Amino acid sequence: MSDFVVMSLDAVHATALELLLAQGFGTNHAEATARTVTAAERDECRHHGLFRISFYVNALRAGQASPDAEPTLTELAPGIIKIDAHRGFSPLALERGDEPLARRAKAQGIAALAVNNALNVAALWPEVERLALRGLVAFAYVSAIPYVAPAGGTKPVFGTNPMAFAWPRANHPPLVFDQASSASARGEIQLRLRDGKSLPEGWAIGPDGEPTTDPKVALAGAQLPFGGVKGSSIALMVELLAGPLVGDVLSYEAGEDDQAKTGAPCGGELVVAIDPVRCVENGSASAQMSHAEKLFGKILEQDGTRLPSDRRYEARRRTATDGVKVPRSLYDNLQILRAGETPREVRDYEGDRLMSPAAR
Amino acid sequence: MSDFVVMSLDAVHATALELLLAQGFGTNHAEATARTVTAAERDECRHHGLFRISFYVNALRAGQASPDAEPTLTELAPGIIKIDAHRGFSPLALERGDEPLARRAKAQGIAALAVNNALNVAALWPEVERLALRGLVAFAYVSAIPYVAPAGGTKPVFGTNPMAFAWPRANHPPLVFDQASSASARGEIQLRLRDGKSLPEGWAIGPDGEPTTDPKVALAGAQLPFGGVKGSSIALMVELLAGPLVGDVLSYEAGEDDQAKTGAPCGGELVVAIDPVRCVENGSASAQMSHAEKLFGKILEQDGTRLPSDRRYEARRRTATDGVKVPRSLYDNLQILRAGETPREVRDYEGDRLMSPAAR
Repeated sequence: MSDFVVMSLDAVHATALELLLAQGFGTNHAEATARTVTAAERDECRHHGLFRISFYVNALRAGQASPDAEPTLTELAPGIIKIDAHRGFSPLALERGDEPLARRAKAQGIAALAVNNALNVAALWPEVERLALRGLVAFAYVSAIPYVAPAGGTKPVFGTNPMAFAWPRANHPPLVFDQASSASARGEIQLRLRDGKSLPEGWAIGPDGEPTTDPKVALAGAQLPFGGVKGSSIALMVELLAGPLVGDVLSYEAGEDDQAKTGAPCGGELVVAIDPVRCVENGSASAQMSHAEKLFGKILEQDGTRLPSDRRYEARRRTATDGVKVPRSLYDNLQILRAGETPREVRDYEGDRLMSPAAR
Repeated sequence: MSDFVVMSLDAVHATALELLLAQGFGTNHAEATARTVTAAERDECRHHGLFRISFYVNALRAGQASPDAEPTLTELAPGIIKIDAHRGFSPLALERGDEPLARRAKAQGIAALAVNNALNVAALWPEVERLALRGLVAFAYVSAIPYVAPAGGTKPVFGTNPMAFAWPRANHPPLVFDQASSASARGEIQLRLRDGKSLPEGWAIGPDGEPTTDPKVALAGAQLPFGGVKGSSIALMVELLAGPLVGDVLSYEAGEDDQAKTGAPCGGELVVAIDPVRCVENGSASAQMSHAEKLFGKILEQDGTRLPSDRRYEARRRTATDGVKVPRSLYDNLQILRAGETPREVRDYEGDRLMSPAAR
């Protein structure tokens, strides 16, 4: 039997949608979340694809997530809109905010969307890519569960706190990066624990504050920011932007709030959009985009370089025709989930329980 | 004879002002630049203090800088203002933009200032700190001369591309960070060359693309971004924001434009300000600030941590009473400059000439 099941993107979407609906999500959330899951599989961002279905379902079962809350939009200032997700998952809130934010950015030159009370387990690139496809430069910031120690410290305070950025391109999908401010994703450490591998240096410290390459010790201790003090500053900035700035929780508060340890923290997100044409006198999108292409050319003319999103776009071209390879174990877990049981991934989310049958 | 000359902050300001005026700067630029230089000495950011006077003067003598251009302000959109510095140094343009940007941020919730044609050799924290003192969250981005290779590459494309961030605090100066997206400052490598010290690993590669710890080889090769691929993404973002977004040059274009190699590149800067009170329904600055203090408390309760700007503020308290210690060699160079000669620092800015008497 093959280790993989090949699925078309349509089949991925149909599977995700059916599962989410069957588990009790309303059509609004099931559809937005299925689109997000499918986009992740399409771009081979597998951590955010079908693998995540169990997170969505588990948070729903634990009462952490609303199944059908309709996000509400409020205008707070000419350049600021707020979307309250009312404890629904973020994909729906972000889809609802996309056009209103873009409209204000084009009218004002710059605008921001403050998302509140949203459960965030998805990547950030979908929302910034969408805005860039409308010709806007976009930024997104989300905090999460406290896993990361500040520079010089030993105890987790920050979430893995990703930030994303997108730049529109002519005749090419937008340039996008979406990166955690931790040295590694939490999931990377969990995967290495599962596979019996050690960690690169610089990823984590143990509960004693000493550097460790043992994933089990790392998960009990703290992850480290990328790039030392400078990455720690980025993590701190993200924490402030997604929390106090938009009137939402800090990572440690989101962690305390998620009592069922669903791994689907509820909190804020800040999305900022700038219309490049409004930043230049008699601005011309094509001139500004062409100028940026000179930079991209200078980077790509060097062997060994690539632009941040190019690997995703290569996957996107490939999966459109070839479909996606879903690991057999994940596929089987989705069948278990469909049958109303709890598959292993859900119970395994907390790294320190990963190898412990007692904790199942 | 002492290696240092102790100067009061008033004396620093008077010295800087007198020198700049005597060298031909107009009162408008001489005063703004002297304030910037004095603020840097006050906070013991010595790279941006009196040490920089020779950069300002050299760029003026080379015809790179305008002595007296008055910045002009244009409203491009309700949330976007542009300041054209007309090849003047940036401190004056940024002072001129401060109140208009703050006013628009408070009216719109979020606003941006696009600075064009400014010579940038100062730090970014003064402009974001000023905005935070007005109760705003602020960001600044500047690109520079191409010294930094993109991740995976070997040739310089990016400037050291600093970004700064400020968060207002009650009863405390703002939290501010201002950090290059390169692993180290250019000046740090030059200082180690002068002092015969090697570089930490990860700072630079040689012209052959191989890692090096030799400062001379590093200066002929390329600096590296901080934090690998993620720092490279930040550098790329800064390059786009300070260049094509605001209709100004890329680092490599600024480098080509600075034919006299003054080390004072002319280009753009993006400053963004957000009013936190407008990001929350019935927002309360004091509630949002108090919330952020909880985060700062969680960080500071750990041994070995500090907040990004705390060291500067400690210096600020100290120098207010004790004055600043100016190295005798710098003090002597200022006297040479005053006499109309060119002191060593100026000619030494390009690292590869640093040890070469022939290049003097």
